[in-house]
Amino acid sequence: MLQKLSPNSPILQATFGIERESLRINSNHRVAQTPHPHKLGSRSFHPYIQTDYSEPQLELITPIAQSTKEARRLLGAITDVAARSMDKQEYLWPLSMPPVISEEEIQIAQLDSDYEYQYRVGLGERYGKLVQSMSGIHYNFELGKDLTQQLFELSEETDFIAFKNTLYLKLAQNFLNYRWLLTYLYGASSLAEKGFLTTEVGCVRSIRNSKYGYVNSDDVHISFSSLQQYVADIEQAVQSGQLSAEKEFYSSVRLRGAKTSRDYLSKGISYLEFRSFDLNPYDPLAISQETLDTVHLFILSLLWLDQLTDVDNTLAKADKLNNLIALSHPHTPLPNDADATPILTAMKAIVLHFGLDDYYGQLIAHAEAALQDPRLTLSGKIAEQVEDGSLEKFGQQQGQVFHDYAWTAPYALKGYENMELSTQMILFDAIQLGLNVEILDEEDQFLKLWHGNHVEYIKNGNMTSKDNYVIPLAMANKVVTKKILDQAGFPVPAGAEFANKTDALRYYGQVASSAIVIKPKSTNFGLGISIFQEPASLADYEKALDIAFSEDSHVLVEEFVAGTEYRFFILDGKCEAVLLRVAANVVGDGSSTIRELVEQKNQDPLRGRDHRSPLEIINLGDIELLMLEQQGYTPDTVLPEGIQAFLRGNSNISTGGDSIDMTDQMDESYKQLAADMATAMGAWACGVDLIIPDRTKPASKNKPNCTCIELNFNPAMYLHTYTYAGPGQSITPKILKKLFPEL
Amino acid sequence: MLQKLSPNSPILQATFGIERESLRINSNHRVAQTPHPHKLGSRSFHPYIQTDYSEPQLELITPIAQSTKEARRLLGAITDVAARSMDKQEYLWPLSMPPVISEEEIQIAQLDSDYEYQYRVGLGERYGKLVQSMSGIHYNFELGKDLTQQLFELSEETDFIAFKNTLYLKLAQNFLNYRWLLTYLYGASSLAEKGFLTTEVGCVRSIRNSKYGYVNSDDVHISFSSLQQYVADIEQAVQSGQLSAEKEFYSSVRLRGAKTSRDYLSKGISYLEFRSFDLNPYDPLAISQETLDTVHLFILSLLWLDQLTDVDNTLAKADKLNNLIALSHPHTPLPNDADATPILTAMKAIVLHFGLDDYYGQLIAHAEAALQDPRLTLSGKIAEQVEDGSLEKFGQQQGQVFHDYAWTAPYALKGYENMELSTQMILFDAIQLGLNVEILDEEDQFLKLWHGNHVEYIKNGNMTSKDNYVIPLAMANKVVTKKILDQAGFPVPAGAEFANKTDALRYYGQVASSAIVIKPKSTNFGLGISIFQEPASLADYEKALDIAFSEDSHVLVEEFVAGTEYRFFILDGKCEAVLLRVAANVVGDGSSTIRELVEQKNQDPLRGRDHRSPLEIINLGDIELLMLEQQGYTPDTVLPEGIQAFLRGNSNISTGGDSIDMTDQMDESYKQLAADMATAMGAWACGVDLIIPDRTKPASKNKPNCTCIELNFNPAMYLHTYTYAGPGQSITPKILKKLFPEL
Repeated sequence: MLQKLSPNSPILQATFGIERESLRINSNHRVAQTPHPHKLGSRSFHPYIQTDYSEPQLELITPIAQSTKEARRLLGAITDVAARSMDKQEYLWPLSMPPVISEEEIQIAQLDSDYEYQYRVGLGERYGKLVQSMSGIHYNFELGKDLTQQLFELSEETDFIAFKNTLYLKLAQNFLNYRWLLTYLYGASSLAEKGFLTTEVGCVRSIRNSKYGYVNSDDVHISFSSLQQYVADIEQAVQSGQLSAEKEFYSSVRLRGAKTSRDYLSKGISYLEFRSFDLNPYDPLAISQETLDTVHLFILSLLWLDQLTDVDNTLAKADKLNNLIALSHPHTPLPNDADATPILTAMKAIVLHFGLDDYYGQLIAHAEAALQDPRLTLSGKIAEQVEDGSLEKFGQQQGQVFHDYAWTAPYALKGYENMELSTQMILFDAIQLGLNVEILDEEDQFLKLWHGNHVEYIKNGNMTSKDNYVIPLAMANKVVTKKILDQAGFPVPAGAEFANKTDALRYYGQVASSAIVIKPKSTNFGLGISIFQEPASLADYEKALDIAFSEDSHVLVEEFVAGTEYRFFILDGKCEAVLLRVAANVVGDGSSTIRELVEQKNQDPLRGRDHRSPLEIINLGDIELLMLEQQGYTPDTVLPEGIQAFLRGNSNISTGGDSIDMTDQMDESYKQLAADMATAMGAWACGVDLIIPDRTKPASKNKPNCTCIELNFNPAMYLHTYTYAGPGQSITPKILKKLFPEL
Repeated sequence: MLQKLSPNSPILQATFGIERESLRINSNHRVAQTPHPHKLGSRSFHPYIQTDYSEPQLELITPIAQSTKEARRLLGAITDVAARSMDKQEYLWPLSMPPVISEEEIQIAQLDSDYEYQYRVGLGERYGKLVQSMSGIHYNFELGKDLTQQLFELSEETDFIAFKNTLYLKLAQNFLNYRWLLTYLYGASSLAEKGFLTTEVGCVRSIRNSKYGYVNSDDVHISFSSLQQYVADIEQAVQSGQLSAEKEFYSSVRLRGAKTSRDYLSKGISYLEFRSFDLNPYDPLAISQETLDTVHLFILSLLWLDQLTDVDNTLAKADKLNNLIALSHPHTPLPNDADATPILTAMKAIVLHFGLDDYYGQLIAHAEAALQDPRLTLSGKIAEQVEDGSLEKFGQQQGQVFHDYAWTAPYALKGYENMELSTQMILFDAIQLGLNVEILDEEDQFLKLWHGNHVEYIKNGNMTSKDNYVIPLAMANKVVTKKILDQAGFPVPAGAEFANKTDALRYYGQVASSAIVIKPKSTNFGLGISIFQEPASLADYEKALDIAFSEDSHVLVEEFVAGTEYRFFILDGKCEAVLLRVAANVVGDGSSTIRELVEQKNQDPLRGRDHRSPLEIINLGDIELLMLEQQGYTPDTVLPEGIQAFLRGNSNISTGGDSIDMTDQMDESYKQLAADMATAMGAWACGVDLIIPDRTKPASKNKPNCTCIELNFNPAMYLHTYTYAGPGQSITPKILKKLFPEL
């Protein structure tokens, strides 16, 4: 079928969706008895994190992805959110088979829908509740639109729906025929802990994929020989009561895209769901990138192969073979009638025909190696972890590793570390809350979030529909900001703007006896700024003007305001956080050198480089050495206990400064004043920078006791959340709450 | 008083406001009998354009300005708006004295306020209506805040209000004492046309500043000797019925800043209004920059001089002297008792003491020269224009010159030509409508407009509170725009974005048989773009990728869409204009060379340079020559009649292209589709660029027959208004109407 395609055809074009189940485990390493984490919003609509059969069994569901990489990245983010939304003592069980478990520990998921609850009660009665505690991965797959179209054009079909049904049915048939290969390679439900099974099966490849797995009773026979027969059989099974509903048919491949089987006849199969994958306990996401891609190539090979003949008998035989392989010890070789040659040949042919790169050749080589040596298979490795007839210890150990991994860099979202921290936080919060999330442009930090029909776009974490366009543009212009605040009666530094030196010189008389700042209108990295804390002479004033005019055509002469600068984060008229930034520094302990103190301080997991962490590494470069020298220190100075040495003159976080959450300490009057400034400006989200000489004296509009030096239309939110000192204030969830008040 | 100030003091710090009256004149050169121009909004609130006594007598009022230059610029803009808001045949009379006029032609202004109407009726009865038809200029002046403060600190006063009253009363006294100098230099109401006066006065300096001007009856005596006396006298005159209201006191200087005279005692005088200026018929604004600055220096000199003694007698003498000078022939010398020495000495002393630049020295020199030679005064020049005992011809001629000047470059606003055209238009419209206008940042095109308490900010003409912040950010990103439009079901070019060449090469299969465009994600001046109108070979595809990746880290591969590109301007869900842009071209007449045709086309007053005009000059540079060569032409080719030659391959207006208004010709279905796109995007104001292969076939959402290649969040509005062909669509007034629906 694929053979006719041009080598240029987009053979890898496809969409992928992954569902992963996993049990929550408590600190006693037993299945958690706590309710579904309340942080994860409502299961009545959560698109990514649901519960499967039982209350502690999380189901992580990725949206549709355009590549396996993207699917895995999405799964990684959802896993990250799930792991960090549970009680911190709980962790996700990394194995498909549960730890030792009793029926009493399996509480049916407390879903809002009574139908869903009763359905689960019925399943428990028919299959037993224990078997429901196994977890697996479902791999949803749809061929790409262009690829499907090209295949359709090369086919003899004239009806596109009929064509798709033929295509996907062939895929399903061949999948069932070669399913044993996946069981061999990726089977990983090797051991039932004590009390799980009534039969002793020992260490095998995949209990989940064997007759002891989650299978229908023997009398349910659904033929895959034709779609018509399939539909007829399923309807018959439901009618006769063998199945309580169509969805109770547990095949390792499921047709998807319509509500009832009969709909496929008129609407066509949209995609397939492959349900046979066990959790890979060596991967934090329970399925590796290599597996995803090998399976993708395997699926394509199923289309390269011929159509099966004598479908029912062939598949019955294949099912037996699969069961045999699933229930063999992982280190035993494959039985003789398990012939992987046709499928391997097809995989290689595809790589060759479409000129796929080396990576795919290597995937095949790895599969071939595992076929030669069963110890290289997943179950082959897991078998070596069995201790005293149990995998509990192994499961606990791997579970803890993945749990710790999730909690490293808790300010970040796994897989999205290249985005801005505030955007990573918004993404985390949105996934947690159950909002639908799409990254419209990753480089540009542009997100689409939606719930039902309600869509919101967010850029840079705080640029939303809540602000009107012209206000951030006003805040981006210092002169405009000052005029608006001044006209509204708020304290801003006195000053004037000049387009030429003559006018600026004439202004000297107005500031001859004041402390002033002379700066280019568009300040850039502090270039061209002169500060006169004492009144400037006319000559110095003129020199400073020359410097400023060399940087910009417009120059500002402003009153210099002394005091401490605080950043107030204002959201929707309310001050949500106050931050003090302190220049890079260390405090002596009486025995360590400054160099050692810097090293110690840099150990803080919040410190990193290039704005990928909430704080930056303190350097010991030329600027820092000069700064130390000015204080009479060298890096080798042993600093007396309690004595603070500064490594920088500026308080920027980006040069190693400390962020100190002052929200609780700041007088309410200043918070209110800052909020009022934002309101006067018309800003929904903004940072207000106030210089406060003495914060113990409260502010009022008539006697502000402070000066506003800047409004920031794109204030970094993460700075307030993960601080060097102080509790830290969470802001991103508040943004989402205001954008989606219905949640 | 000023002597004690430090030479560094901001001596020139002051605020200025100008009011200018002028009669509307019709095409018969008689006073217009038409009502106040309806384009000028409502006189019940218009801050800048009112009517004075009679319906045709416009009063132009500047807001407070920080310099004389700024005041003149504001007056220029208001004059420009007034001139272009009247019937195009009407013009403003450039002289203080009206043309031949009868009482019947003087219709009292049709104001909403009945009080104001009745007050005017009373004035007509008391003073006659003819005298009301004289026009003048009022010069409002306040000393700067810092300057006043410095003067206060140097004074012996402890009460600031008392200090200000002393200061401004001294200024008023000295002004009245030296008023004759202004009458001599700037008097310009030289001739009463036939029938205006019952007495024959001939050609003089200033009828308006003489006893024949607008003066109270002889029995009204208001003393300026002290503020207490002034208040007592005025109250007495009103009580006795000599004046119908305090405002009926016509002094050439008026105290300002309070509602009643008595208020000055407790609240202080804020500023002064100097009312003696005649219209200067040689200046389109009726007062020159030089006059404004000379008067400014003159005012300061009045403060440099000593306080008058024996105020009442001194001022009575000064008034007689002024009347004598006003009623002398302009070419006669000053009487002996008119001694300008003290004031000239004071002016020079100020220049010296404060180190004012040469300009001010020159102003004094000009005044001195005019004192030597009466022919250099304003009335001295006007006297030479008298023909047959009339200045009507002169007035008509000057009025027409200024009228024509107002109508040159009607797309621009005089004095604001450095701003973007769309912003100039918004400013024009706002002034016309009677909105209060403040330019918060000229460079940044940032405006504040308000009416009552309702404030709106506008940047770049169309960035307002009506758009929400994140939507223009989405439109600024091509990929995000495409995704949003695509998800909403609108036609966009198919394509994909790539961050690396490998993925982009893999994509070749999807586009191997299509016309495509390969371009850097952030296109900049068209760099790095490759267009394949025929399917590209893999080698060419790869080469194009290399070129694009050399410009940007992200590359787009998109379907190439053939057809004609139209710009749809959408405002608030409605298509307001459709524009076709045609590359720079000329059409032959059978006798002119291409070079001549280009020259002819460049004569169009709409063509200019650097976006200061709606269309650009067509060049004949290398690119144009190459383009001609490709068509087999040189600049010397004589182009056959009707044959079009292109000078450019691109249709940009900025390279000399033609703008063609297609609003009326475009099928409604496309306008609706473009509007729907903007709505789907959530944009209030935006440009929608559609490629339409055949605009005779209507569009529908299911069968759009077009493709959207871009949304523009900052579409140039002026392009639609002043077009090369077609009627042109006015957009800026619609923006204002939507921002201020209450008007």
